[in-house]
Amino acid sequence: MNGAVSLLGALARNDVTTCFMNPGTSEMHFVAALDDVAEVRGILCLFEGVASGAADGFARVTGRPAATLLHLGPGLGNAFANLHNARRAHVPILNIVGDHATYHARYDAPLSSDIEAIASALDGWFRSSARPDDVGSDAAAAIAASYGPPGQVATLVLPADVSWSEVAHPGAPVARRAIVPMAPDGIVDEVAQAMRDRKAVLLLGGTALRARGLAAAGRIASSTGCSVLHETFPTVLDRGAGVFAPERLNYLAEFATAQLDGAEVLVLAGAAEPVSFFAYPSIASRLVPDGCEVLQLADLVVDAPGALEALADALHAPTPATRPTADRPGRPSGPLDTRSLAAAVGSLLPEGCVVVDESNTSGVGLLGATVDAPPHEWLTNTGGAIGFGLPAAVGAAVGAGGRRVVCIESDGSMSYTPQALWTMAREGLDVTVVCCSNDSYAILNYELSRVGATAGGERAKAMLDLTGPTLDLAATARSYGVPAETVTTADELVVAFEKSLATPGPSFINARLASIFR
Amino acid sequence: MNGAVSLLGALARNDVTTCFMNPGTSEMHFVAALDDVAEVRGILCLFEGVASGAADGFARVTGRPAATLLHLGPGLGNAFANLHNARRAHVPILNIVGDHATYHARYDAPLSSDIEAIASALDGWFRSSARPDDVGSDAAAAIAASYGPPGQVATLVLPADVSWSEVAHPGAPVARRAIVPMAPDGIVDEVAQAMRDRKAVLLLGGTALRARGLAAAGRIASSTGCSVLHETFPTVLDRGAGVFAPERLNYLAEFATAQLDGAEVLVLAGAAEPVSFFAYPSIASRLVPDGCEVLQLADLVVDAPGALEALADALHAPTPATRPTADRPGRPSGPLDTRSLAAAVGSLLPEGCVVVDESNTSGVGLLGATVDAPPHEWLTNTGGAIGFGLPAAVGAAVGAGGRRVVCIESDGSMSYTPQALWTMAREGLDVTVVCCSNDSYAILNYELSRVGATAGGERAKAMLDLTGPTLDLAATARSYGVPAETVTTADELVVAFEKSLATPGPSFINARLASIFR
Repeated sequence: MNGAVSLLGALARNDVTTCFMNPGTSEMHFVAALDDVAEVRGILCLFEGVASGAADGFARVTGRPAATLLHLGPGLGNAFANLHNARRAHVPILNIVGDHATYHARYDAPLSSDIEAIASALDGWFRSSARPDDVGSDAAAAIAASYGPPGQVATLVLPADVSWSEVAHPGAPVARRAIVPMAPDGIVDEVAQAMRDRKAVLLLGGTALRARGLAAAGRIASSTGCSVLHETFPTVLDRGAGVFAPERLNYLAEFATAQLDGAEVLVLAGAAEPVSFFAYPSIASRLVPDGCEVLQLADLVVDAPGALEALADALHAPTPATRPTADRPGRPSGPLDTRSLAAAVGSLLPEGCVVVDESNTSGVGLLGATVDAPPHEWLTNTGGAIGFGLPAAVGAAVGAGGRRVVCIESDGSMSYTPQALWTMAREGLDVTVVCCSNDSYAILNYELSRVGATAGGERAKAMLDLTGPTLDLAATARSYGVPAETVTTADELVVAFEKSLATPGPSFINARLASIFR
Repeated sequence: MNGAVSLLGALARNDVTTCFMNPGTSEMHFVAALDDVAEVRGILCLFEGVASGAADGFARVTGRPAATLLHLGPGLGNAFANLHNARRAHVPILNIVGDHATYHARYDAPLSSDIEAIASALDGWFRSSARPDDVGSDAAAAIAASYGPPGQVATLVLPADVSWSEVAHPGAPVARRAIVPMAPDGIVDEVAQAMRDRKAVLLLGGTALRARGLAAAGRIASSTGCSVLHETFPTVLDRGAGVFAPERLNYLAEFATAQLDGAEVLVLAGAAEPVSFFAYPSIASRLVPDGCEVLQLADLVVDAPGALEALADALHAPTPATRPTADRPGRPSGPLDTRSLAAAVGSLLPEGCVVVDESNTSGVGLLGATVDAPPHEWLTNTGGAIGFGLPAAVGAAVGAGGRRVVCIESDGSMSYTPQALWTMAREGLDVTVVCCSNDSYAILNYELSRVGATAGGERAKAMLDLTGPTLDLAATARSYGVPAETVTTADELVVAFEKSLATPGPSFINARLASIFR
């Protein structure tokens, strides 16, 4: 048994059975070992950013890490943006980076690169396996570290000779996962007292946005009358008819400030203190109102749903009646705009589906229109590095066990990682992509004026404009093997969406929205 | 004048007038400043790896840096692979990375990331501008540093508030470039003596591969009878009818060893000591024969062409007659394979064109078939990070002043950065892309056996196979606005190639080669 076989064996023993990969020469023994360790499934991606985003999406829906397989520093560089998003989402990923043979490093061959420097920007566990005997236990340590709490990207460097050399003593390749501890005694009572006495806002994030946490938050809200918000870009938000629905903390600092206005105490459960996504010349970075006390009920390293349940109990909050649900929107007709797009999604979203949302400006109506759709999971771009949607949809679909994935994309965003479509086709994944296209980096047109920059210049506007030529997104999708069509009215979108949901495998809908900026 | 306008002014004053960009919110003032500084041209790229590869291609054909504009750490991550290639090519690039406002950093907003850590893996100049007054002089220092010698990637971080705040004293934003020194006295005489006495091999790289260095190398070769090689992946190689043509050092260590076999002295001019591209279980990493002395005539920080001329003079080498040229290959007919592909390129390559070569296994016959084509420049993937070709062709075409760029791509490689095609269409660049497609990571199929890994497994082979679905590369190109067709015979390739050369703007030819591995 060589190091590569030992590594794959360690993955299998620790339930890491999916590897999204884009290998090179230094990873050939890892690739060869796929035939020796049947439990591990390799999924080929044409670009490393697809592999890393897929590992993120997989972990979000399964709670377990997938592995990536990347080729030296440049491969890690290509994977970086979506690993950044995963880092911000606190999901577990086992990031495997092949490297030159240990003895080859001194020759500074062309692909030699400082893998550790790049990985350090991911702020997670890092190790380079030094000997074949270490590979199994290093992998186990990486997997254990990836679970956290909080979840993180663990990067294991696998030198080629460590991969190809024989293992004498495989060590102890079983991961010991840390128990997620309860919040410290005292904080629950302190928060309960504060919420009884003062006007409170409860901000939920991380695991508090799964069903258990939301149910407890609903009890707390009905008992105290506090308003409940969720962080702007959740890792996974459980939602839909009957599920307690916090309000989203607005992306725009101006509106977020209004949501927090008047709060005397801000209680954080699984969320960090809210800050503006970007800085702006005349807007404060910190969103918490002056004089508002901040109490951290549960940070990322404790059991946030458990803390919310303890808080609900401390408040003697009864289980509330199921949230009354309004009717879902009807099927829209007429022009295709952000409103009718949202209605189309809201009217058709199937029960148990996973929504991957990288719709940006085009998706402003989506959360409102889907709150009473059948229960579903909602994944967002937690780290703000664009190019998340299609790759995450790949991973979510691999992990979702046959549930439909609905990926709401946008034209600018999908152009970072369009290669993900090929993996969807190759693996026959049940993904419906609705790509909102308005031929513009619309959010940047908005931000251009918002940061106080001169908005009028033609040369500046040209840098935010996606015309000349217009992207034919449906043709791009078909070129990667995904059936695709372009729709220009709400009626056409409804028909195409419904057809896609009923058709196994991926399909792509280019939804042409009128741009508000052109 | 704000920091952004000051920065663009400094670029213009230092002849950095092209900026390949993919901006985000923190770069909006830079974008707005494009309307204030008419000398600087912004070129929009849909993905940062296109911007960085374009800056590399631009610098190779012009000798001057272009700027990139990237969005925080994830933008730098996406750009990293092609910056790695540029680092290995020793070309000057001014890499501008927008960042959060300085005061915003402490809030750890979602896009906060350790830009310096990632940049450190580029091993070049790095600075974050601290104040608006510093921006101009920081840019000048970055540009000066980028020129080297040797050329390097200089990374300037531009915090949003430094960009938007007013400049009081703009400083001295003019770059002082270092003079490239002559090689030390003594080394020329030492090398001349060694080459007179012993069997010598002269290995050329870097600037020694431009016309001046090659002419001197030709004199040295005819005077001493030494064999002359060029490094495997040149930054820019001048070549064609009448130009002295060194032999390429083979990519495969086995063959490279044979090329160096029997050498008693290896003279390096602008090249590093040759090493194997990858390590293999039973092949030495160092390629220099045992007992062969290595003499560095010129390293990367001295004037390599000047050193070669001095050496030729010291050897009293006459100017050789112009290299006798064989006929160019005729237009091929019949099946399309690596041989007829090479003949087609060799028969039609226009004078003065720039070839960007990322053909990998499909291009094995290219150098031989084009050596007697009219004079042209040949650019290769110096760093081994795949996804170089299309982006470099963008930058080369922007810098080439109307000369045709011929980009010989391959299917796996182009799938890393296909978005470059959109910028070709948008800017109307005169690029002929010939994309060799064989539905396989063919080089990895070869490497899989070469590293000694089990070659037979079906699951391993599937990870190197680009079918199921087959990539419709011509459709991808058309979806980005580039006219495209697919050819399956040599005759069709000749017709399509000729038509493309005669048609302004980009065109794309998907050249279907029979795979040797399927």
